[in-house]
Amino acid sequence: MTFESYLAQTKEAVEAILDRHLPTGETFPPRLHQAMRYSVEAGGKRLRPILCLAVGELLGGEAKVIEPLAAAIELIHTCSLVLDDLPCMDDGIERRGRPSLHLTFDESTALLAGEALLMRAYEIVGQALSESSLKAREAGEVVQLFGSILGSAGMIAGQQVDLQMVRSRLDVKVMEYRHSRKTGSLFHLAVKAPALLCQAPIEALNALEIYAKNLGLAFQIADDLQEKGASAAESGKSSRRQAPTFVDLCGESESKALFAQLVQTAEQSLAVFSGRAKRLAELSRYIGQRVT
Amino acid sequence: MTFESYLAQTKEAVEAILDRHLPTGETFPPRLHQAMRYSVEAGGKRLRPILCLAVGELLGGEAKVIEPLAAAIELIHTCSLVLDDLPCMDDGIERRGRPSLHLTFDESTALLAGEALLMRAYEIVGQALSESSLKAREAGEVVQLFGSILGSAGMIAGQQVDLQMVRSRLDVKVMEYRHSRKTGSLFHLAVKAPALLCQAPIEALNALEIYAKNLGLAFQIADDLQEKGASAAESGKSSRRQAPTFVDLCGESESKALFAQLVQTAEQSLAVFSGRAKRLAELSRYIGQRVT
Repeated sequence: MTFESYLAQTKEAVEAILDRHLPTGETFPPRLHQAMRYSVEAGGKRLRPILCLAVGELLGGEAKVIEPLAAAIELIHTCSLVLDDLPCMDDGIERRGRPSLHLTFDESTALLAGEALLMRAYEIVGQALSESSLKAREAGEVVQLFGSILGSAGMIAGQQVDLQMVRSRLDVKVMEYRHSRKTGSLFHLAVKAPALLCQAPIEALNALEIYAKNLGLAFQIADDLQEKGASAAESGKSSRRQAPTFVDLCGESESKALFAQLVQTAEQSLAVFSGRAKRLAELSRYIGQRVT
Repeated sequence: MTFESYLAQTKEAVEAILDRHLPTGETFPPRLHQAMRYSVEAGGKRLRPILCLAVGELLGGEAKVIEPLAAAIELIHTCSLVLDDLPCMDDGIERRGRPSLHLTFDESTALLAGEALLMRAYEIVGQALSESSLKAREAGEVVQLFGSILGSAGMIAGQQVDLQMVRSRLDVKVMEYRHSRKTGSLFHLAVKAPALLCQAPIEALNALEIYAKNLGLAFQIADDLQEKGASAAESGKSSRRQAPTFVDLCGESESKALFAQLVQTAEQSLAVFSGRAKRLAELSRYIGQRVT
């Protein structure tokens, strides 16, 4: 199967998994469940759950364990978009070509739907753990991983730093902190969580962490490069607050050079799998193609 | 030890546990961690973690498992207060006698601090699971319990229904749904989670569920009765949006009668423990005394 077919098929599979793991829009209270579905069904590349499934495939994970995990990661990603779009955050108007959730419903429903997606994600992670063959200690470590990667030293810290950034006092270290937390966190989780569930040996785990870290940062820099000059119609998103980007800080050519280096390091980290990590290598090349 | 000393000592113990489980205010990013601490350190009765510890004591749970659980439950409770106070929710001005979190810091920091408390709670639950002697299936069930009780059919559903309530079209069923979800959820979790971690037999689990359900509803009705006529100075909280209460719907005397019946049912459910659930019985009587 070509990579393009793989990507299209897996995206479709992810959407079917998501559908199975979300209550219908008629479930009481319907407004809340409709809001959850509105945000999840808006589409997107589904890159994080695809990464999760690809790691599961590489390490021989069972579908009943890896699929719920992939769904949980996409629900968390969607939650982060919903909350980032709120007026007190980036004040997003448009997301994936449609009005943002709080404009279509209302602010309180959007906030509660975001929370509900997050809680549903943990519920599904619990389901994945129940189906696994881990020990309680290892299962507890997976839950700790989610809490710490998403928490006040992880994804939420990234958003806090993002909001405090002042364009006139930009700093590479702060920008890298922001990028690695705000965007990198979910790439890290999408790769590490299935590896833990598959009880990957330490060398595999280390290689996958390097892969995820480099890919996550590359992805964010690609976003920064694309946003420069792209119209809302092209990117499908628009917000009143424009966060400073890596390109603002380092310029276009330095950003491109760093991007290429990150993608290369990501791919090289897969050497330990002796060619078996074909889909992960293709995924990094795919992200690499976003910037040419 | 008298119940009053027990209550005071356990509250102090809970506060020490919370302190151990929260990053210091200097941890990067400091503003976020200071906001988390501002909301947790504002005090309160700490009733939910005390319930959790009392169940752990009754069932012979180890401190290294039950204490993190108690902390997690109080962090989740604090998160729910922070989010409820946001302008798009109840627009709370004062909480526990101090300006609400978003007024002391700002709205985005309050929202992120609330999220971070929730993620920290899961991280701590993961720690409790790691220290437990559960199987992965049982550990997964605990995580599922948290996700479902807090999610779109649980606590979040209660808040959604609360916001949609219209005073002119009140309905006992809707009010009970709201109360059992919005307030009852955390009582349920505070009692059931430690029981699962202690691998309580089914009769004990059932009895504790009846206890928690009745106590949670009684607690909310007591709140409704106290709020009627109490000043902000007395209750320590004040918000621009006043949600309709059980007393608005059923009147004072019917509410008091229902309250007394709920407290009695809660206490009676403990019969299965043949007098060993002394602290839980005292806790229900303590809540019973709130309305005289």
